[in-house]
Amino acid sequence: MNIKKPRGTRDFPPSELAAREYIKSTLSQVFEAYNYQRIQTPTFEHAELFQLKSGEEIEEHMYVFEDKSSRKLCLRPEATASVCRMFSEELRSIRLPLKLYYYGPMFRYERPQKGRYREFWQIGMELIGPQSPESDAETILLAYDSLTKLGLTFTLEIGHMGIIRGLMSDLKIDENIQNKVIACIDKGDISQLEQLVDNPVIHDLIKLKGSVNVITQADNILNEYKTAKTAFNELKEVLEWLDNMGTEYCLNLGIARGLEYYTGTVFEIQIPKLGAQSQICGGGRYDNLIELFSGLKIPAVGFAFGFDRIMNAIKLQGIKIPEKRADLVAAPVNNAMRQHTLKIISPLRDTFIVDFDVMNRKLDKILKYAGDIQAKYVLIVGPEDLKDNQVTLRNMGDGKQEKIKITDLENRLTKLCR
Amino acid sequence: MNIKKPRGTRDFPPSELAAREYIKSTLSQVFEAYNYQRIQTPTFEHAELFQLKSGEEIEEHMYVFEDKSSRKLCLRPEATASVCRMFSEELRSIRLPLKLYYYGPMFRYERPQKGRYREFWQIGMELIGPQSPESDAETILLAYDSLTKLGLTFTLEIGHMGIIRGLMSDLKIDENIQNKVIACIDKGDISQLEQLVDNPVIHDLIKLKGSVNVITQADNILNEYKTAKTAFNELKEVLEWLDNMGTEYCLNLGIARGLEYYTGTVFEIQIPKLGAQSQICGGGRYDNLIELFSGLKIPAVGFAFGFDRIMNAIKLQGIKIPEKRADLVAAPVNNAMRQHTLKIISPLRDTFIVDFDVMNRKLDKILKYAGDIQAKYVLIVGPEDLKDNQVTLRNMGDGKQEKIKITDLENRLTKLCR
Repeated sequence: MNIKKPRGTRDFPPSELAAREYIKSTLSQVFEAYNYQRIQTPTFEHAELFQLKSGEEIEEHMYVFEDKSSRKLCLRPEATASVCRMFSEELRSIRLPLKLYYYGPMFRYERPQKGRYREFWQIGMELIGPQSPESDAETILLAYDSLTKLGLTFTLEIGHMGIIRGLMSDLKIDENIQNKVIACIDKGDISQLEQLVDNPVIHDLIKLKGSVNVITQADNILNEYKTAKTAFNELKEVLEWLDNMGTEYCLNLGIARGLEYYTGTVFEIQIPKLGAQSQICGGGRYDNLIELFSGLKIPAVGFAFGFDRIMNAIKLQGIKIPEKRADLVAAPVNNAMRQHTLKIISPLRDTFIVDFDVMNRKLDKILKYAGDIQAKYVLIVGPEDLKDNQVTLRNMGDGKQEKIKITDLENRLTKLCR
Repeated sequence: MNIKKPRGTRDFPPSELAAREYIKSTLSQVFEAYNYQRIQTPTFEHAELFQLKSGEEIEEHMYVFEDKSSRKLCLRPEATASVCRMFSEELRSIRLPLKLYYYGPMFRYERPQKGRYREFWQIGMELIGPQSPESDAETILLAYDSLTKLGLTFTLEIGHMGIIRGLMSDLKIDENIQNKVIACIDKGDISQLEQLVDNPVIHDLIKLKGSVNVITQADNILNEYKTAKTAFNELKEVLEWLDNMGTEYCLNLGIARGLEYYTGTVFEIQIPKLGAQSQICGGGRYDNLIELFSGLKIPAVGFAFGFDRIMNAIKLQGIKIPEKRADLVAAPVNNAMRQHTLKIISPLRDTFIVDFDVMNRKLDKILKYAGDIQAKYVLIVGPEDLKDNQVTLRNMGDGKQEKIKITDLENRLTKLCR
């Protein structure tokens, strides 16, 4: 029999998973330093949760299936809709703001390629309650600080959905067309965009990308469009908070985001050399989504990191991740020593990583194994030593050996390994 | 719109998830202290992987679905088959023994009840390579030490599949009937068992449960049955290792385990007062499963904890879990102070959990919020203080306030919070 893992999924062997856990833990620490608290939603949801507002592109690629009671379920393709559902169902009585984050697998049935998997991981946050420039700024800063903490080089682009949507409202463009325009901008499909709308102001606006000079240009373009201008002024307030913190960013009024629910500030983070899957973060303000689920008019803002892409970026940029190695491999010199040895090492496991040979191997084989797994020390337990209540500690780095009283073992190892 | 989470699944709010993460991390530390390394397999697999050898009971309750290419997939109902599949596909060239552990959600479509969910978590280990009493002992000890570390009171029962299977072979009972007998024993369905086999030796054997006296009784019962006796002697060697470590256990020759793949030592751990879902751990030796997937004759042993049941046991036995609270809530006294405040707290986030008000609230509201979230301190930033490069720190426990130079803030907080 030869069963493989399903296409587009991955197995993570120890070294790879350890690196992922290290990065996850570093990111979690930054999220928690901002006082965001982790929550968890189910791996599958009722399919309609995502069919409502996650956008056509995601819906097309969802894993939808029926359970044995013919419920239409779906492996979650993203987390924001789930968090809003959870908020409506269980968290609505908690005082606001709610500062939440999540980490977990998401699922999309797409053609697998480098940096794109059918089961992929996201870590992200949602800030529920505030509608203020500083809440948008905190969201962007949290993403920015997280990646800075990892040591990554990246570019941050910021836009605002209210500008393009406001402009289209000011131009009296139907909301249905608006959604199609947004989808075209997101895909970069300019020719279809030209078929949908021929107003040059829209085409000029979405080309605006750069730093301070963009602000003047946008001010000029939007001068006569009141709703768009209001949105742009909102964005300027967010930027002021970021400037105060020395955040480096690029303004991009052509950011449209694939998800239909964004209403205000939006941002994307890229690692340019990652190729086709270079976007490692996307987020923004979504002020109507919670109302849709709960009836409560509660604004929110958030972002998600593509965790697998961050791992690719870490590799690409040569960022070192500390390795965990066994401190000690226990090596009884003969059969009679084996149970004694287990008794000696057992209390050490409160503090150290201690491997015990379960293959009943001879000393030379255990030493070879200790070398293979890059253990730091080997503890040799023999009958002569044991009579004197001592053991032999072998440094696997330089091969030097020392005798140590069993009662001193823990202190000595603390000095050597910690 | 009113979409709920799917039946049998759960949302985990911050406090509950924090407790779960704490327990998960404590258990992981014990696994890692034994030098087990974490791996991860996909959330779904090809359905046939589990249809082969996981046993009828699990197969009945699997979430099977087709993807858009008509692949028959399945949310994993347990992890051991996945780990063996991963071993065959990717780890077979690595030196043995492989000491692996995993943590993640599993899925079974069953009637939800207390302690039984459709999405539930397991943490478990697999020791691939050895076929020795000490490897069985290490497996049992790792489970035992993990629960001891958590402070839980529990009972451990040990049996051996080779005894009942060996007895049936010695009695020349067909293997098909053997599997049915095992299933009956596992379900405790004695009347169906009596219909299947009428040999009194089987019925006497599976009733044997207790400590040392059981050994003599089993020796007597099995005296004429060579295969069964050999298996029993194997088990006695495992027990010798456990006795050496002072492990408390109960022998139970009626343990049958629901999974068909077990071949040798098996064990279960119960928390008696948990009611119908009192079993929190099950495991044992499965020497043929890897061969089934890879063609390589490699023995293995492992166990899984029902993580949700452990969490229930923690609650039931009143075991305290430390809480994480915000160290600091930043409180600018007026609008002009807001951006200054963010600049002051930003570097503190390398070490402390610092909440920043993003609702543009007045000082009294921020103090109220800090009280609600049980923050340890509030940092009040006002214009007079700022002129002197200082801030005011308010202890939320006793309400006392002190002035601190901004340059001394980090040191002072380290003293107070760490």
